[in-house]
Amino acid sequence: MPGEFELIARYFTRPTQRADVALGVGDDCALLEVPAGMQLAVSLDSLVAGVHFPRDTPPADIAAKAVAVNLSDLAAMGAEPAWMTLGLTLPAFDAEWLEDFARGLHEALDTFGVALVGGDTTHGPLTLSLQAHGFVPADQALRRSAARAGDLVYISGYPGEAGQGLALALGQAAAQGPGADKLLARLNRPTPRVDLGLALRGLAHAAIDVSDGLCQDLGHVLAASGLGAVLDVERLPLSAELLAEAGEARARELALSAGDDYELLFTAPPETAPALAALADRLDLPLTCIGRIRAEPGLELRLAGADYSLASAGYQHF
Amino acid sequence: MPGEFELIARYFTRPTQRADVALGVGDDCALLEVPAGMQLAVSLDSLVAGVHFPRDTPPADIAAKAVAVNLSDLAAMGAEPAWMTLGLTLPAFDAEWLEDFARGLHEALDTFGVALVGGDTTHGPLTLSLQAHGFVPADQALRRSAARAGDLVYISGYPGEAGQGLALALGQAAAQGPGADKLLARLNRPTPRVDLGLALRGLAHAAIDVSDGLCQDLGHVLAASGLGAVLDVERLPLSAELLAEAGEARARELALSAGDDYELLFTAPPETAPALAALADRLDLPLTCIGRIRAEPGLELRLAGADYSLASAGYQHF
Repeated sequence: MPGEFELIARYFTRPTQRADVALGVGDDCALLEVPAGMQLAVSLDSLVAGVHFPRDTPPADIAAKAVAVNLSDLAAMGAEPAWMTLGLTLPAFDAEWLEDFARGLHEALDTFGVALVGGDTTHGPLTLSLQAHGFVPADQALRRSAARAGDLVYISGYPGEAGQGLALALGQAAAQGPGADKLLARLNRPTPRVDLGLALRGLAHAAIDVSDGLCQDLGHVLAASGLGAVLDVERLPLSAELLAEAGEARARELALSAGDDYELLFTAPPETAPALAALADRLDLPLTCIGRIRAEPGLELRLAGADYSLASAGYQHF
Repeated sequence: MPGEFELIARYFTRPTQRADVALGVGDDCALLEVPAGMQLAVSLDSLVAGVHFPRDTPPADIAAKAVAVNLSDLAAMGAEPAWMTLGLTLPAFDAEWLEDFARGLHEALDTFGVALVGGDTTHGPLTLSLQAHGFVPADQALRRSAARAGDLVYISGYPGEAGQGLALALGQAAAQGPGADKLLARLNRPTPRVDLGLALRGLAHAAIDVSDGLCQDLGHVLAASGLGAVLDVERLPLSAELLAEAGEARARELALSAGDDYELLFTAPPETAPALAALADRLDLPLTCIGRIRAEPGLELRLAGADYSLASAGYQHF
């Protein structure tokens, strides 16, 4: 049975093309170079089998989603991804599992030009801890606290799709048509909005990625900014697939409260609307205005001129 | 029951005095500033309950040891510690446990002036994933691959003490006298050799911290450097406490093969001996020459003019 060091060497050590990696996997530390004028953006995500993903999830999917979730945090900050480290706790040595996991990991990293620069492989219950490192010019980061009264609230893509995907995966919902596969893919292989995050530098004020639910994550922005918001529920971009699978009422609920979409929620002043429209066109990604920031605290949801109440508040990891 | 965000806020969010932390815990990413001319040194360690520490270890000890283990990697690179992130997976919400853990964590971080800049708290089997970030001037890092033929091999402190501490903790050995407590403390509260690592810049060639056993860790240096070494077993610094608890033969075995000491093993050219003696005096830490690097591959152990064979090769995490 191979030791930890052989495991690491076999599955996770690869040469990198990045010139800013002076030393990668294999020493006590990685040695890295942050470009002049850039702040280092760092984010950590832990994923536990049976909590964040079903134990029988294909290993390549686990790896790809972990990378996406982690890079999504950089995107929400407007940071350019550069490096990642991986803490991997495994219940047993399983060459087939590791090969598939490593393939999914490297494919996901390669998609975004990210180098795996270090890690630790240990024995125990299946757990991943990924840490993404990226760069953002000083004072251009998209902080949660930077929303301003009068900003418009935007969401990228189609929120709620991953939520219905989860219901399908858990057997809580039955597939109604061919759109179900797309919703499952949105759950298992989310796309971190890295290009969008970079393009929002200088356009958006505040940003956050929707991991726990649109309303809950917007709540973090409002709390950090000391502001409130009103959302127009009828403006939520509900995809045809989500509507077909979940129906309109459930689709709205999922769009507002389900997690795992990893779309970007951001606030921007009204005068950026033309630039955002051009950006949506360039990225081929809907950027939909769903409300506005106001000084009055609290989050108000409006549908057809009346108050709208949310059945569930969003996902709590604990 | 409080949510993840309240947990994090309550136990892990504290203001930092470090001016290089532009944004700490509480946003999608931390924003950090690496000083000009410095490379960023990054190291990750995962610790699993029941594998790396007994499940009933006092939480403050778990935290303090995790910090020490992680900073030890920076020390072995000659890097100055700056920031840390923590991925914490907990089986349940236990306020008493968390308070004690947070106390041990913050005490350990404060000792070394390190800021906790981010993390993720999740639900699952007790696992810690810590990542230390530090600085080292470009080209001054103490790489494993930098040993040269003719270098002398040094070890700091008294190797083997934590190994006997582990035997005591596991009930595999009975305490023989008052020294047993010191050996247990060496296991539970190791001291990362941060000051030594910094002082070895420009003096030592290669360095590694002894986490898996002196011979095994020296083996990593030899493999990375493409060289061999001969060690004089009689020159091993065996503490009075270790000798009293384990006897000479077992003490030698532990010093060569037991892990968890987190002393620094380093190689340096013979002409640095006076500077190293002065350094040992300044740090009040023994730096003992135990052998030399040679071009001929392999690790030869010598005792009283004869070959010495090691019963066990070192700790394997897998």
